[in-house]
Amino acid sequence: MVAAPSTSVESLCVNSIRFLAIDAINKSNSGHPGLPMGCAPMAFALWDKVLKHNPKNPKWFNRDRFVLSAGHGCMLLYALLHLTGYDSVTIEDIKQFRQWGSRTPGHPETFETPGVEVTTGPLGQGISNAVGLAIAEAHLAAKFNKPGCDLVDHYTYVIMGDGCNQEGVSGEAASLAGHLGLGKLIALYDDNHITIDGNTSVSFTEDVLKRYEAYGWHTIHVKDGNTDVAAIAQAIEAAKAVTDKPSLIKVTTTIGYGSPNKANTAGVHGAALGAEEAELTRKALDWSYGEFEVPQDAYDHWRQAISRGEALEATWNASLATYRSQYPAEAAEFERQLRGELPQGWDASLPSFSPEDKGLATRMHSYNALNAFGPNLPELIGGSADLTHSNLTDIKGEASFQKGAEANRYLHFGVREHAMAAIMNGIAYHGSGLIPYGGTFLVFAGYMIGAMRLSALSELGVIYVLTHDSIGLGEDGPTHQPVETLANLRAIPNLLVMRPGDGNETMGAYQVAVTNRKRPTVLALSRQAMANQPGSAAAHVAKGGYILEDSNGTPELILIGTGTELELCTKAAAQLRAEGKNVRVVSMPCVELFEEQDAAYRESVLPAAVRKRVVVEASSSFGWHKYTGFDGACISIDRFGASAPGPVCLEKFGFTVDNVVATAKSLG
Amino acid sequence: MVAAPSTSVESLCVNSIRFLAIDAINKSNSGHPGLPMGCAPMAFALWDKVLKHNPKNPKWFNRDRFVLSAGHGCMLLYALLHLTGYDSVTIEDIKQFRQWGSRTPGHPETFETPGVEVTTGPLGQGISNAVGLAIAEAHLAAKFNKPGCDLVDHYTYVIMGDGCNQEGVSGEAASLAGHLGLGKLIALYDDNHITIDGNTSVSFTEDVLKRYEAYGWHTIHVKDGNTDVAAIAQAIEAAKAVTDKPSLIKVTTTIGYGSPNKANTAGVHGAALGAEEAELTRKALDWSYGEFEVPQDAYDHWRQAISRGEALEATWNASLATYRSQYPAEAAEFERQLRGELPQGWDASLPSFSPEDKGLATRMHSYNALNAFGPNLPELIGGSADLTHSNLTDIKGEASFQKGAEANRYLHFGVREHAMAAIMNGIAYHGSGLIPYGGTFLVFAGYMIGAMRLSALSELGVIYVLTHDSIGLGEDGPTHQPVETLANLRAIPNLLVMRPGDGNETMGAYQVAVTNRKRPTVLALSRQAMANQPGSAAAHVAKGGYILEDSNGTPELILIGTGTELELCTKAAAQLRAEGKNVRVVSMPCVELFEEQDAAYRESVLPAAVRKRVVVEASSSFGWHKYTGFDGACISIDRFGASAPGPVCLEKFGFTVDNVVATAKSLG
Repeated sequence: MVAAPSTSVESLCVNSIRFLAIDAINKSNSGHPGLPMGCAPMAFALWDKVLKHNPKNPKWFNRDRFVLSAGHGCMLLYALLHLTGYDSVTIEDIKQFRQWGSRTPGHPETFETPGVEVTTGPLGQGISNAVGLAIAEAHLAAKFNKPGCDLVDHYTYVIMGDGCNQEGVSGEAASLAGHLGLGKLIALYDDNHITIDGNTSVSFTEDVLKRYEAYGWHTIHVKDGNTDVAAIAQAIEAAKAVTDKPSLIKVTTTIGYGSPNKANTAGVHGAALGAEEAELTRKALDWSYGEFEVPQDAYDHWRQAISRGEALEATWNASLATYRSQYPAEAAEFERQLRGELPQGWDASLPSFSPEDKGLATRMHSYNALNAFGPNLPELIGGSADLTHSNLTDIKGEASFQKGAEANRYLHFGVREHAMAAIMNGIAYHGSGLIPYGGTFLVFAGYMIGAMRLSALSELGVIYVLTHDSIGLGEDGPTHQPVETLANLRAIPNLLVMRPGDGNETMGAYQVAVTNRKRPTVLALSRQAMANQPGSAAAHVAKGGYILEDSNGTPELILIGTGTELELCTKAAAQLRAEGKNVRVVSMPCVELFEEQDAAYRESVLPAAVRKRVVVEASSSFGWHKYTGFDGACISIDRFGASAPGPVCLEKFGFTVDNVVATAKSLG
Repeated sequence: MVAAPSTSVESLCVNSIRFLAIDAINKSNSGHPGLPMGCAPMAFALWDKVLKHNPKNPKWFNRDRFVLSAGHGCMLLYALLHLTGYDSVTIEDIKQFRQWGSRTPGHPETFETPGVEVTTGPLGQGISNAVGLAIAEAHLAAKFNKPGCDLVDHYTYVIMGDGCNQEGVSGEAASLAGHLGLGKLIALYDDNHITIDGNTSVSFTEDVLKRYEAYGWHTIHVKDGNTDVAAIAQAIEAAKAVTDKPSLIKVTTTIGYGSPNKANTAGVHGAALGAEEAELTRKALDWSYGEFEVPQDAYDHWRQAISRGEALEATWNASLATYRSQYPAEAAEFERQLRGELPQGWDASLPSFSPEDKGLATRMHSYNALNAFGPNLPELIGGSADLTHSNLTDIKGEASFQKGAEANRYLHFGVREHAMAAIMNGIAYHGSGLIPYGGTFLVFAGYMIGAMRLSALSELGVIYVLTHDSIGLGEDGPTHQPVETLANLRAIPNLLVMRPGDGNETMGAYQVAVTNRKRPTVLALSRQAMANQPGSAAAHVAKGGYILEDSNGTPELILIGTGTELELCTKAAAQLRAEGKNVRVVSMPCVELFEEQDAAYRESVLPAAVRKRVVVEASSSFGWHKYTGFDGACISIDRFGASAPGPVCLEKFGFTVDNVVATAKSLG
């Protein structure tokens, strides 16, 4: 290996990345130096020569988005943010790499570090988020741009590695990106032949470029990614010139480039070089600077990004001013959305229900909700993972987002649940007020929970419309019947899991979901119909749990129900009251919101002294003992379901009024 | 569309499938007729002309395996089983399609219906299971076959659809299958251009064959899958002739072929034809037979499979007899494995530990366990999703299973968690005694939980080695720190979740995992070290929870710990005892097993009267209130973690002896 000497400004800039990474990872004795060392040239080519961004305003709307899909290489990104002049990453921050409370955590976290567009680390997510970012850009451009005034006009760039390319979610997302012809999505594939288990020859010998071509991508190969910055920059420009296809640029590199003994080995992937090898690398790369020292010439060059960025933003601001004057209504709408303000009265046309109204499945109430508020909420964009007419996620009159028809806002995700979730995250990461929603069967949360936890971690207001929410779905049988899924989702921090029990609660669930822009919501919705409850109201949902109906006086027994089982509770309560018992029915559409209420409210709904409690939910009991304690009971299903008509399944597994009554009485 | 007349025996056979499907789905008014109608010709070509199986012995070892990856089309499979003479599916069973207790559930379930090789329905799983089946076959063939005596020699066939090809898990598995050159894996891709949301043109326009070529597969296209049975059979033979690559045969078909008004529409995918359209289809296909009526000529032809199968098995039995006489030791070993008998003393070399022994991370104990019993257990086969030296899943001296080296038993799955789980399921489905294991980080259970629930549902004794099991992993931060994951897994029925707390418990956990051949086990293992406990023993693990140490007399307080937090409990107990409190420490390495113990045992460990209980686990509290009730407490983490050195994370989030002591005292 012939290392580039650190004489030219370009080399100084490239090697500044490498040594910031080496030094930070040595100091913390933890991290992944191999990628920053190998990808420094492509990062320099991209960030110095191509990327449109403004370090002094990381949230400038029309910036190019950069996603480090190979998130373990985060020191690359922190070095770039520092070198180009972002205030969020000082040299002191870099010295605090991977320490408690730092802005330089072990993987990039968007909520910790301005300039980090997406949270990455779990492989395959970043490239899939990038598809969402590119969809957002294409959609807003088609919607708002006017002749001569391209208010929305940026690229989405990605650096991904072998790991990202092995993950199925990236394949799903790339297939959809190719189908949609997302020409402003450009991914650089760090082809370094090394993963943690060694050379990719042990498990990954496919022809990646050919695969992306099969997806409909434009592909380029840069053979010397270690030193040929010009070739990388040319490849990016060539990719930009292809406007009807996303581009994948395979950049062949050497992992840990510059390290005499560790380059091109798995040993440099995820462990500090150590002092000795760092010193040898300094010699090999002719780097005469001390730890955390960046030569002034490098700073001077890199930080031209600041003036470039300010000029870019100023130009854009001028465009916006023109747009405002020429298209005041559109500009007002555009700016409203960017501010994240919901339109006045967006939910005014949501219906309310009384017991006289026909009982419907909550998936049907959901459909009615989407069709009631969807027309008032143009920032709503979403669809289904190929279950549109089962999930009922379509909005009348809204056409499919397709190549050449990007202003449409119905997304046909295909049978790609995991990518759907990651793409929705990407749309939310775009930060432009778009509200993504997506549907599949509840049980298939199991296909996308890796992305759902990132919705929650990264505080993304994504709406999951998950229908067929229990064994009540019937004939499709146990492969399709969720049992553990509600528990799976409720265990995830910062995720609202809603299981509305009638029409009013479904409307309330959407009000909560739409207004919660910093956390994701799951709507667990039924296939089967249920009655509308006299005591329900949309407004109650925001409290998570509430008294649906009550006897006079202190209850001796509380029935707690959700979703389709709420009706079982009210019917059982009527029977029990007829026998003289004081029974309260509590509806609990969202446990998480209930737990956020103050102690007095919670006590008013579930008095500590009332320990005879029965939870009724056609799902696992796991997690419910927090509300039943040692003295209550759960009517639940703690095994897999079975294939049979839904009402038969429910009856066989004990979801009957008689069983609720009997269980309640068994508590004494 | 020109329908084939039902005059030739071939047409009778093909149309027998179609009308059994039409009639069964009409009767249940639920199901998916489109696939059986479109795939009947390829199914006939495969099952009548190629497939080696014995309907009278569905478990005959050397049969070809058939996987209906597009499981919603299960009436195709039930029709094939019935028509070829399996006792498991009578015409009465077909009339009970999708009814309670039937052998013909809504998706194929291996535990319900002999002849169903794998449980399918969740898309993408079946083809990925098939990769596991092909790995099992290749491994056993390389291990046991002798010159002139190919005891293990069968193909794995798959029918998959557009949905399977859109799911990421299938891409992961196909990439690995291409890498491994699994020449006896042959998939027929039902290219019918229709998914639930309509024509694939809305979301899926990639070049599927080119993608598989990029993976290293051999590909063929049969353009007329509706009528050209001979072309399909020829393609399968051509695929068999390519022995160094898996083959994908794209068979272009018309979904719902034969239905005048519904063919080639999404409407025939997942809904009954209805009586009227069924009648029109009878006319279109010249089918003069009644409901559920199979012409005798068709039965006569189809059921030649019985005599063929018996002859095949007899020939194989003769080979086995020869093998027994020529290679008695190998034969004995082969037959032992097929019987699922573990070798005598397989676990005799597992070490035991006392407090004097150095405290290690449980991932290191796991490594020592695998290296202690692995050499004694040749049916153990597994590896890691590219985290070998983090998961410590390697066994010294065991080389990598690769193309041309299939007798090796270390599997480099690549960065493909979901496929890893599905492939392990496939290896288990092979039914040849192989015990699959696979490692990744615990948090990435979120990438494969869709396959893990199928391990549990299908009663597959797969072993998941999931390391880095809490925030204690430290610097990698919240994207890598599981918080909700243990709860996610514990909520799944029929899955054993083990979190051993020292060396002895890790050994015991493996004893449970290896001996449980009808349910999967998760081993949640730490990155960080912990002390060996004087009261622990491998044998205790089988009870799930046990008294690790106790004060004299009835305890007033019980500390319940798992994994790395067990040590916190014993240290806190010592402090509390020094203050005069009667404290019991219960170790709970496996909640599920504890719950299976009889009431007397459970009461002896956790007396109902002792309500002061503290659970200590560096994970979500979700699910633990079953053991703490209203009066106890959980020391847990109900938010996402943070990037910092592990000990700092643990301290900041309250996992300290002081906090355990203070929390215990706060209970009064």
